Amino acid sequence: MTGIDDLPIRDELRGKSPYGAPQLDVPVRLNTNENPYPLPEPLVERIAERVAEAARQLNRYPDRDAVELRTELARYLTRTAGLAVGPEQVWAANGSNEVLQQLLQTFGGPGRTAIGFEPSYSMHALISRGTGTGWISGPRNDDFTIDVEAARAAIAERKPDVVFITSPNNPTGTAVEADTVLALYEAAQAAKPSLVVVDEAYAEFSHRPSLLPLIEGRPHLVLSRTMSKAFGAAGLRLGYLAADPAVVDAVQLVRLPYHLSAVTQATALAALEHTDTLLGYVDALKTERDRLVRELRAIGCDVTDSDANFVQFGRFEDAHAAWQTLLDHGVLVRDNGVPGRLRVTAGTPTENDAFLDAVRELMKEKSA
Amino acid sequence: MTGIDDLPIRDELRGKSPYGAPQLDVPVRLNTNENPYPLPEPLVERIAERVAEAARQLNRYPDRDAVELRTELARYLTRTAGLAVGPEQVWAANGSNEVLQQLLQTFGGPGRTAIGFEPSYSMHALISRGTGTGWISGPRNDDFTIDVEAARAAIAERKPDVVFITSPNNPTGTAVEADTVLALYEAAQAAKPSLVVVDEAYAEFSHRPSLLPLIEGRPHLVLSRTMSKAFGAAGLRLGYLAADPAVVDAVQLVRLPYHLSAVTQATALAALEHTDTLLGYVDALKTERDRLVRELRAIGCDVTDSDANFVQFGRFEDAHAAWQTLLDHGVLVRDNGVPGRLRVTAGTPTENDAFLDAVRELMKEKSA
Repeated sequence: MTGIDDLPIRDELRGKSPYGAPQLDVPVRLNTNENPYPLPEPLVERIAERVAEAARQLNRYPDRDAVELRTELARYLTRTAGLAVGPEQVWAANGSNEVLQQLLQTFGGPGRTAIGFEPSYSMHALISRGTGTGWISGPRNDDFTIDVEAARAAIAERKPDVVFITSPNNPTGTAVEADTVLALYEAAQAAKPSLVVVDEAYAEFSHRPSLLPLIEGRPHLVLSRTMSKAFGAAGLRLGYLAADPAVVDAVQLVRLPYHLSAVTQATALAALEHTDTLLGYVDALKTERDRLVRELRAIGCDVTDSDANFVQFGRFEDAHAAWQTLLDHGVLVRDNGVPGRLRVTAGTPTENDAFLDAVRELMKEKSA
Repeated sequence: MTGIDDLPIRDELRGKSPYGAPQLDVPVRLNTNENPYPLPEPLVERIAERVAEAARQLNRYPDRDAVELRTELARYLTRTAGLAVGPEQVWAANGSNEVLQQLLQTFGGPGRTAIGFEPSYSMHALISRGTGTGWISGPRNDDFTIDVEAARAAIAERKPDVVFITSPNNPTGTAVEADTVLALYEAAQAAKPSLVVVDEAYAEFSHRPSLLPLIEGRPHLVLSRTMSKAFGAAGLRLGYLAADPAVVDAVQLVRLPYHLSAVTQATALAALEHTDTLLGYVDALKTERDRLVRELRAIGCDVTDSDANFVQFGRFEDAHAAWQTLLDHGVLVRDNGVPGRLRVTAGTPTENDAFLDAVRELMKEKSA
């Protein structure tokens, strides 16, 4: 039998495993920051309606430029994120992963580097490597905020072509101040100039306003977003960015033609029609997230402040053993490899209760 | 206003334009090898049904490994392409473009090269460049068949890491003999060994059997396919490959996690339920394709034999001027840059009649 290593694959892929959390069948799954609320039935019906309409022309290629979808995404940002943007400032792809891949193909790639401040969303490093972009692991403070002076120094010294800032940060939940983004943007422009990508996948769950207004007058600043979390549509794979129109033009040089299917465009448009209902679920999840922080602290956990739909908690001498114990209690959380910490997604009140009960058991065993 | 060239994009992207045929609103569009037959209404209804089902869990990530879809694609190949394959030999992505991109990220990339025999599907060169893979333009005979001896010599000399063979070839329509694939595979194994990718996007329209059986016992041979053409689903963006299971394992090292949305998987599964109806349209298109070849020859055109759903015809002193004349007559065909030739997609009988009338007018003006 042929194995991967018998194939003429690239040397840097040898011995690697595919990325991805275990997809286990467990009663309470709080490991991938999914929204626990299924789409409401009227939206499901509207999706079926719009997809049927699209399916009647499915023999034709989709709108390569996804103009209607980008128009509605721009309208959504304008209404909720503090800056009026037009469709020429918005670009969409199959998940924010593909958005980031296109940005790295355009602004990173072989002979270039990207920096992120870790721990952060591990796909930034993985997609950088996948596009041949060298990866630089930047520093964070012990409380998981960005150490601005150390970050500026790293940018000045290493002169990366792309700078990733994740706010709220995954897996820690930490929001980034606008001042920090501005300081890093200035450092990046002085050093290179380089592209600064603010990954706002969890922005709708934050206590603070979006960083979107910062793109105004800053052509090298890109904001990335997703419908996976706030729109409860992880299965849809719809990510998007907002930036100067020139950035949108530039990624079209590398995007695969017709990358976004007609059914994806139709489904996303249907979901955007139901924005208000879906943002109602976001409010409920913020309340639950705040409760998780409070109750975990009451139980005696060390909890990182969270602006996202998940909470980082600890500390455990052996985080992986703690992960396994919670799993034995029927609750799947995420071990992101941050020493002594785990990450739990805010679920429904019932799921969160089950999780909190399991943590109480865990802490009992721990102190026993 | 900021322009693309004011941005810190990669040097090799400067001055480039995005790939893609003009999307013009013309009565008869025969330029992108789309299937002219809309999906039948019962299939549209089935798509709506399956997508609604998927939408009820859209808050969850999709099956990352698309197991059900790969099982049905394997079943389809087993039934129609002359070799029994299992799901572990099949992989799917957003269009065959993404399949090819994943193959190039795994087996090509910086410091490596790929060869194709041109003129051929221009995305092979573009995706190679997009993944940092050096591109080698290999030779063809004047009749657009592959010059086996010259191709073997080019492989022996240049030692590419990836070899593309397109059968039927786009834009010429030329089928490739199994013996030619075997000769090139042997040359590629002796030279490197390298991965040989047989792009069979138009296989269902061919007079000859699929080249799928050749993957048996050849772990470095990959067959790529699409649902865009034979399944009348260009808007769906569903490409797939069949190969040794080790190749399927290997591309999972570079695929973006959850690359294939739940709505795409659901729509493709619905279409596969209606395979027989859709293959009936393929039969009708083969008949029309053969008629186009005959009638274009009767009109006095130089026509390349075609095994695809399109026909290459000429010769024109100025192919682009001929393209414009046909467009002025309301018929959009494709100017692929092959000197003196144009490509027309087989449409409905009515569309083909309109096209043939326009060519008659063109030839009259030409000889006038």
